[in-house]
Amino acid sequence: MALDLYKYVASYKDFPEKGVTFRDISPLMENGEAYHEATDRIVKYARDKKVDLVVGPEARGFIVGCPVAYDLGIGFVPARKKGKLPGKVIGASYGLEYGKSSLYIHADAVKPGQRVLITDDLLATGGTIEATIELVEKLGGIVVGTAFIIEIEELKGRDKIKDYDLLSLLQY
Amino acid sequence: MALDLYKYVASYKDFPEKGVTFRDISPLMENGEAYHEATDRIVKYARDKKVDLVVGPEARGFIVGCPVAYDLGIGFVPARKKGKLPGKVIGASYGLEYGKSSLYIHADAVKPGQRVLITDDLLATGGTIEATIELVEKLGGIVVGTAFIIEIEELKGRDKIKDYDLLSLLQY
Repeated sequence: MALDLYKYVASYKDFPEKGVTFRDISPLMENGEAYHEATDRIVKYARDKKVDLVVGPEARGFIVGCPVAYDLGIGFVPARKKGKLPGKVIGASYGLEYGKSSLYIHADAVKPGQRVLITDDLLATGGTIEATIELVEKLGGIVVGTAFIIEIEELKGRDKIKDYDLLSLLQY
Repeated sequence: MALDLYKYVASYKDFPEKGVTFRDISPLMENGEAYHEATDRIVKYARDKKVDLVVGPEARGFIVGCPVAYDLGIGFVPARKKGKLPGKVIGASYGLEYGKSSLYIHADAVKPGQRVLITDDLLATGGTIEATIELVEKLGGIVVGTAFIIEIEELKGRDKIKDYDLLSLLQY
């Protein structure tokens, strides 16, 4: 029987800023059974999409994407904040639900034609994921899917990336 | 036959500061075979130590620890920088190879008596790992092991945590 993963999400009003309700997957990942089941659902999705590589934005995108990459025996590429990656990188800017930021990946991290899954814990306005898609496509990767534990439907992030396939496990 | 994981580490002089040589596991995690093998070695270690929970510091500790937790069907707890975690947290300060910082975990993230493995990509001076151990022990967890992809031997981080079991896959 499938676990009710909604039970493993904590909600915090006015974090990190007033007016934002933060949905936190900490209880989910701290619970071995829940973390395993959430990951397995994304692994199944990735297998169906014949994914070659997983890319996740810093830092919760790592928590979602790394076990998926491991289970499929494929690589994981982190999209990181400014100044975190040594060597040659490419960047993309984006607006967040709260603030503005940039993401970077290594310029040789994605090979042209690779089928890429992008993972993050949460889809809000879609800014982070849009920037990550931009980075992957600049390097010639094909974004064959995007996967999130949580989707905040009222923020309509889905509309921003409507040309891409999307899996969300939980909707708010 | 075991892969030579040394081939998957990149070295950058003077990053992030002059005088520091940064050892980067990006090539390792971007390669499915290498990432899988490195993880499997840590999974084996964790299984021998009968680990209940994996704790990893932000952000590369997630990349190392998350697939280990997933494979063992146990939880993963992130130790995060200031302001990243909502709700009740506890903190610990530490000196880095370059600079000073603090780490935080949720105050209910570790249960008393839980057998904890701490993971990170790299052991340098040991400040990060010492702070992470402090957080786990404050909550009553038992640190039964620490695991790193890379150990920088000349920085003697191992001496700082000599009361704890330690696995490093690669030494420089």
